[in-house]
Amino acid sequence: MTSSLTELLAVEPLDLSLRDELQRLIDTKTKPPGSLGRLETLARQLGMIQGTTRPSVERPVMIVFAGDHGIAAEGVSPYPQAVTAQMVANFVAGGAAINVFSSVAGLTLEVVNAGVASPLPPSPTLVDVPIAAGTRNFAHERAMTRDEALAALAAGAERVRHHAALGTNVIGFGEMGIANTSSAACLMSRLCGVPIDECVGRGTGLDNAGLAKKRNVLAAALAHHADAREPLDVLAAFGGFEIAMMAGAYLEAARSRMAILVDGFIATSALLVADSLAPNVRDYCVFAHASNEAGHRRMLDHFGARELLTLDLRLGEGTGAALAVPLLRAAVAFLNDMASFESAGVDNRSDRHA
Amino acid sequence: MTSSLTELLAVEPLDLSLRDELQRLIDTKTKPPGSLGRLETLARQLGMIQGTTRPSVERPVMIVFAGDHGIAAEGVSPYPQAVTAQMVANFVAGGAAINVFSSVAGLTLEVVNAGVASPLPPSPTLVDVPIAAGTRNFAHERAMTRDEALAALAAGAERVRHHAALGTNVIGFGEMGIANTSSAACLMSRLCGVPIDECVGRGTGLDNAGLAKKRNVLAAALAHHADAREPLDVLAAFGGFEIAMMAGAYLEAARSRMAILVDGFIATSALLVADSLAPNVRDYCVFAHASNEAGHRRMLDHFGARELLTLDLRLGEGTGAALAVPLLRAAVAFLNDMASFESAGVDNRSDRHA
Repeated sequence: MTSSLTELLAVEPLDLSLRDELQRLIDTKTKPPGSLGRLETLARQLGMIQGTTRPSVERPVMIVFAGDHGIAAEGVSPYPQAVTAQMVANFVAGGAAINVFSSVAGLTLEVVNAGVASPLPPSPTLVDVPIAAGTRNFAHERAMTRDEALAALAAGAERVRHHAALGTNVIGFGEMGIANTSSAACLMSRLCGVPIDECVGRGTGLDNAGLAKKRNVLAAALAHHADAREPLDVLAAFGGFEIAMMAGAYLEAARSRMAILVDGFIATSALLVADSLAPNVRDYCVFAHASNEAGHRRMLDHFGARELLTLDLRLGEGTGAALAVPLLRAAVAFLNDMASFESAGVDNRSDRHA
Repeated sequence: MTSSLTELLAVEPLDLSLRDELQRLIDTKTKPPGSLGRLETLARQLGMIQGTTRPSVERPVMIVFAGDHGIAAEGVSPYPQAVTAQMVANFVAGGAAINVFSSVAGLTLEVVNAGVASPLPPSPTLVDVPIAAGTRNFAHERAMTRDEALAALAAGAERVRHHAALGTNVIGFGEMGIANTSSAACLMSRLCGVPIDECVGRGTGLDNAGLAKKRNVLAAALAHHADAREPLDVLAAFGGFEIAMMAGAYLEAARSRMAILVDGFIATSALLVADSLAPNVRDYCVFAHASNEAGHRRMLDHFGARELLTLDLRLGEGTGAALAVPLLRAAVAFLNDMASFESAGVDNRSDRHA
């Protein structure tokens, strides 16, 4: 294990010392106890992550990592591989769903070329740090070397350090990569011990025949890489460069005590990698939404997580994470700005029995 | 029926003529078809309500109607009746949850005294149009007269006309009124034909003994007003002034082709009244959230509605409606601002088979 990886894995457990004080403050607010439901849990978590009774959402960032997958050659997606690069150009031009939702949510959006196969037009707004021009086809060989996996983890962490230095305390990660639900399904199957058929979904919209083919291809690939068991090996065997960078980004964000917005199926597969390397990372995570991609619900169950939003999304790009940002703003705002029963002169229910 | 009521009930059915064109536009966006899930349905609905393929969220408003309930004398709430007036003062001072959430969502907040029992401090930011100093105790007599019900409907409609003239095209309604879950439960039971035990919940936090008592009180009240069957009579028998004003506000908002954000248990009970008077009103409604108050889910089922948010809220005030506003902004933004496959030069899946 390299020294930089050792450092990256040094994620502190969540500091619970403010938990009771946060709950007490929440219960003084002018509302029946518990009546803000999930937002109360969220406010408490944000306070613990940030180590303050006055948590905030500062310079929230969305990083979209893009990469291509050799497995696309097996026909596991209804879209051609060229779409990855075309969508990166769309992100850079501001025309994709994540551009629109980031703008609505007040998120700073960064697009990272983690390893796209086709040439990308040069752009000042693209962070161009590819590991290689796409992964290898994991039907036949490991998607990447261990060194490439380590380099991708480090590159993802570096992007988070960049934003940490600028004051970001809330971050979300999105992805683009034709065929990356195949990568995510294999990571899930191996890391969670779930049969591949329960991990495979229609992705961007496979029909029944396409779905059956995808299942066969991935079952064979898992058998082919039966030796890949240790998290870094699993990542190298099945991962994408965008997924590996996301995994590194999760680790660094947790080390930086950021609140991390977890998006859908691919983004959660990257968290599975990060979590298998440093389980404390999950304490910093806010599970933004439940995707309609088959398998995501089971991933959420793996983390004992309950999502904030259930909107039948299955797009990726970080769109579900972006849509959850206003709920974080609402959670910190009620904790910081609501009056207490005492300050507002409102009778609390206990007064009745006094 | 008065001529003003006849006018209020003239809610046009939703104009479906743009439906196919809206769907076509949604399907040209750079995303797999259907991948934005509920936001696609929402964008289409907003387009049809506003009669445009470029819907918008203009000057969104939240109106909180407050009123007191004579039934509170039966001990159906753990909070004293004085809390209604105290909370109105809290709204006016900016310290309540709905103030905070309206601010986060960019909503203009208006507070209306629909009929609070205790004196309210004069304030330039309070719309002070009470019908009376609280309703009568419907355990013994009708909560209000038919004339009072009509006056409240008209007053609620008038508040919406005020905002329509200022350009508002999205509106939500909230409420405050100690004991108003009792009123809402009886309205639900009578208007939906659901046994009262399935309509009664813990409200702001009744214990088991309190819940049993509330059930008995309300079952007796329903029996006492067995003759109240026609919607206006049901409203007069069990309603609150805040609920009646909300009902009028729903009707006028639908007449004005506004998108209407429906909050929780009480707000939906007011919609039951409006809908029983003019069923087209439901087409203009966006069901913002499912409350944790027992009975709300069944109300949603009555409307065949699926909520946008499930956050275990049970506060009222319009809080759930306010939290859904960012989703409306996201829905209109993707429809208006996302690139199409053609404009972005992204290969669509169909190209593959060309």
